[in-house]
Amino acid sequence: MAKYEKISEAVVRRLPIYLRYLSYLQQVNVTTVSSQQMGMNLDVNPAQIRKDLAAFGDFGKKGIGYDVNYLVENIRQILKLTDEVRVVLVGAGHLGHAISNYNAYVKDNIRIAAIFDNDASKLGKEVAGLPIQSMSEMAHTIAEKNIKLAIMTVPAPAAQTVCDQLVSFGIKGILNFAPTTIKVPKDVRVHYADVTSNLQSLAYYIT
Amino acid sequence: MAKYEKISEAVVRRLPIYLRYLSYLQQVNVTTVSSQQMGMNLDVNPAQIRKDLAAFGDFGKKGIGYDVNYLVENIRQILKLTDEVRVVLVGAGHLGHAISNYNAYVKDNIRIAAIFDNDASKLGKEVAGLPIQSMSEMAHTIAEKNIKLAIMTVPAPAAQTVCDQLVSFGIKGILNFAPTTIKVPKDVRVHYADVTSNLQSLAYYIT
Repeated sequence: MAKYEKISEAVVRRLPIYLRYLSYLQQVNVTTVSSQQMGMNLDVNPAQIRKDLAAFGDFGKKGIGYDVNYLVENIRQILKLTDEVRVVLVGAGHLGHAISNYNAYVKDNIRIAAIFDNDASKLGKEVAGLPIQSMSEMAHTIAEKNIKLAIMTVPAPAAQTVCDQLVSFGIKGILNFAPTTIKVPKDVRVHYADVTSNLQSLAYYIT
Repeated sequence: MAKYEKISEAVVRRLPIYLRYLSYLQQVNVTTVSSQQMGMNLDVNPAQIRKDLAAFGDFGKKGIGYDVNYLVENIRQILKLTDEVRVVLVGAGHLGHAISNYNAYVKDNIRIAAIFDNDASKLGKEVAGLPIQSMSEMAHTIAEKNIKLAIMTVPAPAAQTVCDQLVSFGIKGILNFAPTTIKVPKDVRVHYADVTSNLQSLAYYIT
């Protein structure tokens, strides 16, 4: 495989989408796929797909397409998904529950390893096999389990406070579902997963 | 304002993120912002921000920055968010509840106008002021309220069937939370909002 030290953020965001589609093809026993077919199904320009993948190596065969299994394996390596990645989730409300219950993470080597909430009445209750823990245990659990990633499913007014705590405990990446902007130090990365932005870009094409 | 007929998908996906940050600045009474400041807070290259915005008009003043209110107003126009956009939500589980309860949509002129579920025991119960309706009412409600957008928060195995129904009832855009790929006709657009892809791209930077 070719070297792939420098990947643009746009590519890092597209590779998981390719990976999801390719995993789907594996499930339905499709072994070869063309960039045209991928592009049509994923709403991405086929030339873009070829360019993205060519940056990492010579995966495709002209006139035949990509070997699905081989490509899945390589994208997993590129995204460093070969070892398990542990994540904490803060906010065990409806959204927190729904996310915890997705089994998909396990398959993708991303695993929610601890769940926290500030509601005393929820403590000890299990979500997806994990007990809801008190916020006061966050520092200890994050250090003990060497966790660097967090999912925040807290209400918007609580987001910055929770974020500051997570950062002070060593979290370096936050997937923020709270519909609000949060401030972090330069060495911490935030991805926003709020529904509004997603709907707005979708609405642009339809209305 | 300059013409803006052709906007690339990447820009359409970034504009809502700019809009969210600018709305936040409005809330905290900040009236001017530089591309550097925006870039730092949003983890986007400031040159990219300047380029994105310059495509629509001359919003910035050199050495001063952008007028926040003026920019918000213009991005709303560009994204066609000046009229209300109605959305149906299918799947009133934890995730469906959480999404329905976000107030953010109203503010952004995107409003969930009907909620459906196939669980008879849920029918008639209210979520965010809307009664959960039977799937058999979907066709009628979508036509009556002239709805073109749908949010799917159904389990993965149900996703394709529900998607096919929505498309047959005239839905043209789907925000899919089910962690699975769905097939749609060419004139229907799907955005994937699954957590796994988001975590995978975040993990890439951290691990």
